[in-house]
Amino acid sequence: MDSAAPPIGVGLLGLGVVGQGVYSTLQQKRVYYTERSGRGVAVRRIAVRDLDRPRGVSVDPGILTTDPLAVATDPDVVVVVEVMGGFEPAGACIRAALEAGKHVVTANKDVMATAGPELLKLAYERNVELLYEASVGGGIPIIAPLKRDLQANEIYAVQAIINGTTNFMLTAMARDGLTYDAALAEAQRRGYAEPNPANDVDGTDAAYKLAILATLAFHVTVRPEDVYREGITELAPKDFAYAKRLGYVVRLLATARRAADGLDVRVHPTLLPEDDPLAKVDGVLNAVAVDGDLVGRTLFEGPGAGPAPTTSAVIADLLDIAYGIAAGQPARPPRFPTTNACVQPIGSLEMQYYLRTLVRDRPGVLAEIGNALAANNISIASFLQMEADAVAGTAEIVITTHDALEADCERFLEQAMHLDAVVEPGIRLRIESHRS
Amino acid sequence: MDSAAPPIGVGLLGLGVVGQGVYSTLQQKRVYYTERSGRGVAVRRIAVRDLDRPRGVSVDPGILTTDPLAVATDPDVVVVVEVMGGFEPAGACIRAALEAGKHVVTANKDVMATAGPELLKLAYERNVELLYEASVGGGIPIIAPLKRDLQANEIYAVQAIINGTTNFMLTAMARDGLTYDAALAEAQRRGYAEPNPANDVDGTDAAYKLAILATLAFHVTVRPEDVYREGITELAPKDFAYAKRLGYVVRLLATARRAADGLDVRVHPTLLPEDDPLAKVDGVLNAVAVDGDLVGRTLFEGPGAGPAPTTSAVIADLLDIAYGIAAGQPARPPRFPTTNACVQPIGSLEMQYYLRTLVRDRPGVLAEIGNALAANNISIASFLQMEADAVAGTAEIVITTHDALEADCERFLEQAMHLDAVVEPGIRLRIESHRS
Repeated sequence: MDSAAPPIGVGLLGLGVVGQGVYSTLQQKRVYYTERSGRGVAVRRIAVRDLDRPRGVSVDPGILTTDPLAVATDPDVVVVVEVMGGFEPAGACIRAALEAGKHVVTANKDVMATAGPELLKLAYERNVELLYEASVGGGIPIIAPLKRDLQANEIYAVQAIINGTTNFMLTAMARDGLTYDAALAEAQRRGYAEPNPANDVDGTDAAYKLAILATLAFHVTVRPEDVYREGITELAPKDFAYAKRLGYVVRLLATARRAADGLDVRVHPTLLPEDDPLAKVDGVLNAVAVDGDLVGRTLFEGPGAGPAPTTSAVIADLLDIAYGIAAGQPARPPRFPTTNACVQPIGSLEMQYYLRTLVRDRPGVLAEIGNALAANNISIASFLQMEADAVAGTAEIVITTHDALEADCERFLEQAMHLDAVVEPGIRLRIESHRS
Repeated sequence: MDSAAPPIGVGLLGLGVVGQGVYSTLQQKRVYYTERSGRGVAVRRIAVRDLDRPRGVSVDPGILTTDPLAVATDPDVVVVVEVMGGFEPAGACIRAALEAGKHVVTANKDVMATAGPELLKLAYERNVELLYEASVGGGIPIIAPLKRDLQANEIYAVQAIINGTTNFMLTAMARDGLTYDAALAEAQRRGYAEPNPANDVDGTDAAYKLAILATLAFHVTVRPEDVYREGITELAPKDFAYAKRLGYVVRLLATARRAADGLDVRVHPTLLPEDDPLAKVDGVLNAVAVDGDLVGRTLFEGPGAGPAPTTSAVIADLLDIAYGIAAGQPARPPRFPTTNACVQPIGSLEMQYYLRTLVRDRPGVLAEIGNALAANNISIASFLQMEADAVAGTAEIVITTHDALEADCERFLEQAMHLDAVVEPGIRLRIESHRS
């Protein structure tokens, strides 16, 4: 290795908070990183949206351009670091960079979730690397462990809390009894939620990240649209209190699991037993649990977002490529899936349920509901009357079930709306009570 | 890549439980691993201690030998997998294999803790790989994350529970009120503790593993003898009860931290706040927390021992080498530290303490002890009288302190033995109350 060799040219796509973090960290730690990788890296060109915007870092204006494609294909650039985010033009730039024989490091979950397999195949064909540790879980190492460190295993399941915004909100709702709206306002006030929080609260963000993890874990292409998803918008403060009484914690859990007839991939609010390690992951932390046939269950936890953790993951990937180049190794071209996932329809999965329903407070209600459940092959594990409203003549009940078919539960919920005993159908949550 | 190319020759050193796990897993998953790595691997020779011993795996007797050095240097062997354990002849075999230009995968904490830096340098000079993920934390990815995924960070601290035997015992002592002897017997009954448990219970095993982690995290050579260590043999059931009353959990914590005047590296029973993630790591699980300047705190948790998790880590390293060879990359030669750690003497560290002491149950005792503490610059954070024995005229007290110099605490403990108030000096435990 020759640390006196000219530094490796880097093209940076994006100079938002993450881009600024990457740029300034590369400047500040230049000597250390050169020592570590055996070869320096130097940012040669940077694509920005607006040349004149004031920034927190001082950059030679001569290397700035508003043309990301020009950066992605610049002859002086050996590694393209994409931190602009969003689908396009990021996707086109990554594609162009790979076509031009550049290594690519990206933090982009949108592009990797929707086009990852094709881009990995392109990188393989061009004999270059495409690394994307920062696309899931911020600074938590999870892509590389799935790709490399756990590769001897057949993976049975990946279960993850991979959306910090919703985990912060759920933690606040449970701890402080906040409503959904109040929890969202608090998350926005702290900068954890965007002004338009839809992608976070409806489970889209988690579904994208889960598609990336599941593709890696199961070696088949899992698309975001393969992932069943439900968000957290329907949860009420009382659900957290009731869950607690039953020994559960509510989490927006992303699950990818080998099921009997295909992959079970879904994101929805889930009741986790309070002693489950994932139930203890509070606030904006992320955590990913991986079950493998040899290793058993391993858990990876840490800050799942933010400029500094994302910078940690992006630069690790960049230094890894630099180290390979310094060692005279052109690339370790990526693996890519060659078949599409066979996803098991959620209706055919068996799960346990938490059903919170507002009923008339009169004799015979339990029998009526019990009959409807039995008619749909659902057996009751516990029945609790939570609150009665004497004036309205209603009572809130919570039923937990034994394992039942999701399709049966759906049919029950439709029928329940028409039962005389039922005032408001309420909410149905899924319970995760067993390990894969 | 050409998966039809002849498989890569592997020499296996050791056919104990781990060796059998590696061998049989490579057989069972041959097709899958060939697909993953782009090139098959095949065990060409195996070194065993006794040719005639019955084994749980069926192996062609023609590839067995009692000469590990012959396997390590066999011309048909490209990668040597060392799972024999212990210092020698394992160390000599690894050295001979590297000298002969073979890649090496090892699960050996003894060799890597005592000779890792020299062996990594030798591998670097010979342009071969030396991978050792299985040497710490069983199947939990921690070596690779420290080496690669967190490499952009300056690491501030590594805190770990890396001895499953003692963690099982401490969990049982806390939960079931077992004595040390009863907990050890239970661990032995379950196969978690060896007939001679000294290396586990006195902190030696954890100190070896910590030396490996600290060397990686801080890029300097940390030897096992650099690690201050205390075992768990002095702990009494009441310490767990008292700790719980104070909001703490007792763990054998391995800590490596940048301190003011060098590295702070130590293994000892530690009182952790009960809400610390490491306090929630129960039974034989292992966990490693890493604090970095960019990423913040990440946590890696899982089964820290056992044939299957160890096999997971060993084969991951092996497939990584195979993948590189299949990609036409001869090696990614390792980094190695070039300077020795400057270790800060424990006497100059500041910590908080838990002091459990048997005193005379009479007026003036607190003043006498308080004076002795004050004379040694130690200020009291809490004072609790736990139990009084009216017949003996004694009382058990527990004092927790604010940050104090370890040397001052040592001096106090010496003086306390001679105080009239003190019947038995009891035990001193360290409290981990702050994050690095």
